[in-house]
Amino acid sequence: MKAVYAAGTNADDPLSVLEVGERPEPEPRPYWSSVSVKAATVNHHDIWSLKGVGLAAEQTPMILGTDAAGILDEDIPVRKGLKAGSEVVLYTFVGTDGAGVMPGERRTILSEKYPGTMAERTQVPSANVFAKPANLCLDEAAALGTSWLTAYSLVFTSANVKPGDTILVQGAGGGVSTAAIQLAHAAGLEVFVTSRDEAKRAKALEIGADAAFEPGARLPRKVDAVIESVGAATWSHSVKSVRPGGTIAICGATTGDQPGAELTRIFFQDIRVQGNTMGSRDDFARLLRFVEHADLHPVIDSTYALADAPAAFAKVIDGDVFGKVVLRV
Amino acid sequence: MKAVYAAGTNADDPLSVLEVGERPEPEPRPYWSSVSVKAATVNHHDIWSLKGVGLAAEQTPMILGTDAAGILDEDIPVRKGLKAGSEVVLYTFVGTDGAGVMPGERRTILSEKYPGTMAERTQVPSANVFAKPANLCLDEAAALGTSWLTAYSLVFTSANVKPGDTILVQGAGGGVSTAAIQLAHAAGLEVFVTSRDEAKRAKALEIGADAAFEPGARLPRKVDAVIESVGAATWSHSVKSVRPGGTIAICGATTGDQPGAELTRIFFQDIRVQGNTMGSRDDFARLLRFVEHADLHPVIDSTYALADAPAAFAKVIDGDVFGKVVLRV
Amino acid sequence: MKAVYAAGTNADDPLSVLEVGERPEPEPRPYWSSVSVKAATVNHHDIWSLKGVGLAAEQTPMILGTDAAGILDEDIPVRKGLKAGSEVVLYTFVGTDGAGVMPGERRTILSEKYPGTMAERTQVPSANVFAKPANLCLDEAAALGTSWLTAYSLVFTSANVKPGDTILVQGAGGGVSTAAIQLAHAAGLEVFVTSRDEAKRAKALEIGADAAFEPGARLPRKVDAVIESVGAATWSHSVKSVRPGGTIAICGATTGDQPGAELTRIFFQDIRVQGNTMGSRDDFARLLRFVEHADLHPVIDSTYALADAPAAFAKVIDGDVFGKVVLRV
Amino acid sequence: MKAVYAAGTNADDPLSVLEVGERPEPEPRPYWSSVSVKAATVNHHDIWSLKGVGLAAEQTPMILGTDAAGILDEDIPVRKGLKAGSEVVLYTFVGTDGAGVMPGERRTILSEKYPGTMAERTQVPSANVFAKPANLCLDEAAALGTSWLTAYSLVFTSANVKPGDTILVQGAGGGVSTAAIQLAHAAGLEVFVTSRDEAKRAKALEIGADAAFEPGARLPRKVDAVIESVGAATWSHSVKSVRPGGTIAICGATTGDQPGAELTRIFFQDIRVQGNTMGSRDDFARLLRFVEHADLHPVIDSTYALADAPAAFAKVIDGDVFGKVVLRV
Ligand SMILES: [Zn+2]
Ligand SMILES: [Zn+2]
Ligand SMILES: [Zn+2]
Ligand SMILES: [Zn+2]
Repeated sequence: MKAVYAAGTNADDPLSVLEVGERPEPEPRPYWSSVSVKAATVNHHDIWSLKGVGLAAEQTPMILGTDAAGILDEDIPVRKGLKAGSEVVLYTFVGTDGAGVMPGERRTILSEKYPGTMAERTQVPSANVFAKPANLCLDEAAALGTSWLTAYSLVFTSANVKPGDTILVQGAGGGVSTAAIQLAHAAGLEVFVTSRDEAKRAKALEIGADAAFEPGARLPRKVDAVIESVGAATWSHSVKSVRPGGTIAICGATTGDQPGAELTRIFFQDIRVQGNTMGSRDDFARLLRFVEHADLHPVIDSTYALADAPAAFAKVIDGDVFGKVVLRV
Repeated sequence: MKAVYAAGTNADDPLSVLEVGERPEPEPRPYWSSVSVKAATVNHHDIWSLKGVGLAAEQTPMILGTDAAGILDEDIPVRKGLKAGSEVVLYTFVGTDGAGVMPGERRTILSEKYPGTMAERTQVPSANVFAKPANLCLDEAAALGTSWLTAYSLVFTSANVKPGDTILVQGAGGGVSTAAIQLAHAAGLEVFVTSRDEAKRAKALEIGADAAFEPGARLPRKVDAVIESVGAATWSHSVKSVRPGGTIAICGATTGDQPGAELTRIFFQDIRVQGNTMGSRDDFARLLRFVEHADLHPVIDSTYALADAPAAFAKVIDGDVFGKVVLRV
Repeated sequence: MKAVYAAGTNADDPLSVLEVGERPEPEPRPYWSSVSVKAATVNHHDIWSLKGVGLAAEQTPMILGTDAAGILDEDIPVRKGLKAGSEVVLYTFVGTDGAGVMPGERRTILSEKYPGTMAERTQVPSANVFAKPANLCLDEAAALGTSWLTAYSLVFTSANVKPGDTILVQGAGGGVSTAAIQLAHAAGLEVFVTSRDEAKRAKALEIGADAAFEPGARLPRKVDAVIESVGAATWSHSVKSVRPGGTIAICGATTGDQPGAELTRIFFQDIRVQGNTMGSRDDFARLLRFVEHADLHPVIDSTYALADAPAAFAKVIDGDVFGKVVLRV
Repeated sequence: MKAVYAAGTNADDPLSVLEVGERPEPEPRPYWSSVSVKAATVNHHDIWSLKGVGLAAEQTPMILGTDAAGILDEDIPVRKGLKAGSEVVLYTFVGTDGAGVMPGERRTILSEKYPGTMAERTQVPSANVFAKPANLCLDEAAALGTSWLTAYSLVFTSANVKPGDTILVQGAGGGVSTAAIQLAHAAGLEVFVTSRDEAKRAKALEIGADAAFEPGARLPRKVDAVIESVGAATWSHSVKSVRPGGTIAICGATTGDQPGAELTRIFFQDIRVQGNTMGSRDDFARLLRFVEHADLHPVIDSTYALADAPAAFAKVIDGDVFGKVVLRV
């Protein structure tokens, strides 16, 4: 079958090891289901894999892709409504709760140990298959499995906020940031955003942010929580911007992960820093219901054919995106 | 000054001990502030007081009223923005955190130990005075201190739900129920409601409920949490309607408090029952910000002059209300 | 193989349908492991099954037993230390997290859908097999899977207490109550106990209770949490004995499950009632480490051969026990 | 009255601004109580104050001291048992919950805004006075208000652990570290400790640690939580030593507060970092009950007369202590 995969790893030139070509179909496993992929999105995780972070050269070739929407190949007994032909979205975090894997198996995202989603067909534990929210097309639905799940978990599980509270989203434009803005707005939270780019600040306001600032700006007041994925460039500002007892929820560090830790502010002001990778299966289920109930539509930056994966990946690497970059299979 | 007060207690005929007349001004206390009341609302707590539940005959005459909006009489130092003449709303739960009272003093709602709000002037710990949300008139703002605070605490603190979840509000019409519907809807929750009264079911849908049912109806699916203030008439239905691991948040029992406890269902399905009276000062602060940010307006059933308190109370006792009954001072 | 099983169900005379005889070996399933049972204990769950509560007549014959210690039959890959021949204890709650079962499968305790542990051999998801704590013999270790897991979850997950707090254990003698006393004492909690039986009160003090009272006694002060498994006979006392904001953690209702619910006290005093059946796999893992670290030994009331199961069951039904009744295979 | 105070601030030579001499008695305030101090301990907070961190030169002269045991000067109404002459310990965190101060007043530890405890007489909100645990002498009891409260809060509120879990205490010897070891041990937790000093490692084992390691040592396995007060010298080791999903609870950074933040490990492994200064009044109350119930005795390194405060401070600055340095008034 056709697939987008890492042919090797290259820390300096990740695109040099990205290939589109033939790969074997996934092998059946007990308690797993196969899905014909219709759309997947490009995530930073895919770039890291190409660079060899979290993916060793000896594991390649490895099909990339950590989210997907598609068509279920066979009925899943027990779970009503999931029939062959159903439009579905995938929870791609495997081993978090033992479904379909050996006990003690380390949790892993598709494309780390098991083949990823950027292929004509992929496979996940049957427990990880969910009906697509009815209000979304397949392109939009593909965004849910990685960026939107992470954003949901950051805002509603890690950030520890309630309606009436204010969150600061550091950096506007990326998949997680745009999702966080849309989700928090729909839940009645006040949303502040920072971005270096005036156009992105304007777009952030359009999708639900209440105020947008230049990076490092002094905010009108301290916030209850910060959604942090930028890292070194914003860390100090995040620590200074959160109120005593507030939370910094962090899912990435695209500008570097070793800023000064600011320990004194953290302990003196009872600040919580909560790391967050992906999210739980329960949160994924809630996300799907929320997206449908509030009729939220993930912002799509652009859509590419599978064969054009290199162009899609280049766009994400350049960082000049607002919302998700979709690969259509 | 003019005030509405319990002249005694009478379990069978509470209106017989309700009086409107002259009462002394409140005495100054350190760390307390005085407020010229403009509006207060009638709550079940006031009826219970007249009946002698929570108020002993020897404590009467006692000014009633557990919420208020009004004009601050003097500046409050330290808390910027609270100046003489400011429009304010009051947090009337005293002693929950020691502000303005002796350590170890039992927590108490205004009108239990300290005079209530249905008077030309009332007094609370200065920490309990908050600026009125700018989007509300004083009549609407009066609703926040009891019903809306309770509803906020039930839905966002006790019920343990997240966006994507569904709550069931038992009984539509009362102040807490209508507040819970409006608040939960604005936070993106799915809201089911029950009521015997078709007109109230229709109105519940207008203010944000997603579906309305007759009492005891089998729901389309189990809910994540139940907001319970009805008691005996709905308890068994509440226990059967909540999913395993879900929560029943309870703030009242107007139809009786001794239904069969349903302990087997509770323990076997890991159900949580969370009692909830009023809410914390932090939750009150969040409520005010949320009401303003989401531009929520408490539903007002009707408005009366202070002198017409008996008619206002009679309306609440009859139960034929949808939203809050306001007394204008 | 030899097994203790329900040959049918009988609500009035549960012992009449209890049989000891030959039953087929369990069939292999993917991601499950087989264990040669050495000891299991009799729990109220087994009695309920014989009565047809939670077990339908058409599901019989069903092997009983919800806990076990024994010898692992084959290596479990991935989980180091679990080799053929290892002494192990079993987590018998299946489907709580998807390990080894289909997604959406309702959670179930062994002997409800899958054969139980009172047999020469039983089978659980491989994720549910744990090394036996080194300080325990197999008889003692058998007690961990049901009573001790439940007690751990009640005290340390549901009851929401910290060192310095006081818990009340309603009823001394049963497997969960004795486990709760031993566990809470080892964790530095203050423990109050009630029992009708003076000898049991004395024994409770020996195993770690700080004070023992007659049922319904007025306690020296309100407690932070109540461990409730008695039900109707103690419910009202439990509600009156817990402090405002405290928790009643409930895992059973042996004297009836429909006492008056006491809703007014519950909501007015912000009481939490937390239902609790068994416990999570993570809590089971913690329990095993705690039992070994604190060198706790489950109190054994008496030990029977598998063939003498009817006598063992009769003892539990009579209720004249202090600690666990063990069946040795 | 006699007092130990900062006569000014000096970042390089804190002892140069430490004086023992006459200071005015505290002025009465409503809802505050006066206490005749018998013992206080030297904390890092006092050293920071002398250095001008958290204390501005224009606030000096300021009486130092953030904990105390002593004799209550007058009855406290409402709180039974607190009579003139009672032996008491003090909760010195003011403004955390509004008791005795203006709303909105920033929370503050005695000696920051209000005079500290190293004097013949000090004053706190009446809500902050607690009966001394009966098992302790006044010297020991003085240790509870700062180091022990902080340790209790770190281990039982911030660290998010349960019996069966393992904590790592970075650095043995300081007041918080020794308290954390003693408290965690008494609560049944497994305790690992690090120290550069062999003698301190040996003493840590004596007071309840299960294993002691050199700084940076690879541990036998990852821990559930780290108690971190050392900062730069141990931060990286702390992040590497905690299990995925575990917590680093931090109350200080004596070796520097700007190590590399290790953001990638934190987010990828869902690690929580929880800042913690002092603790809540509720936790202080629990601490007192726990200390008495488990008969814990704070380790005292040495005791000095008030007049010898400079020697006592020098000892703490040198860091060659194991347990608390007490000043006897
Ligand atoms: Zn907004
Ligand atoms: Zn809705
Ligand atoms: Zn004890
Ligand atoms: Zn130990």
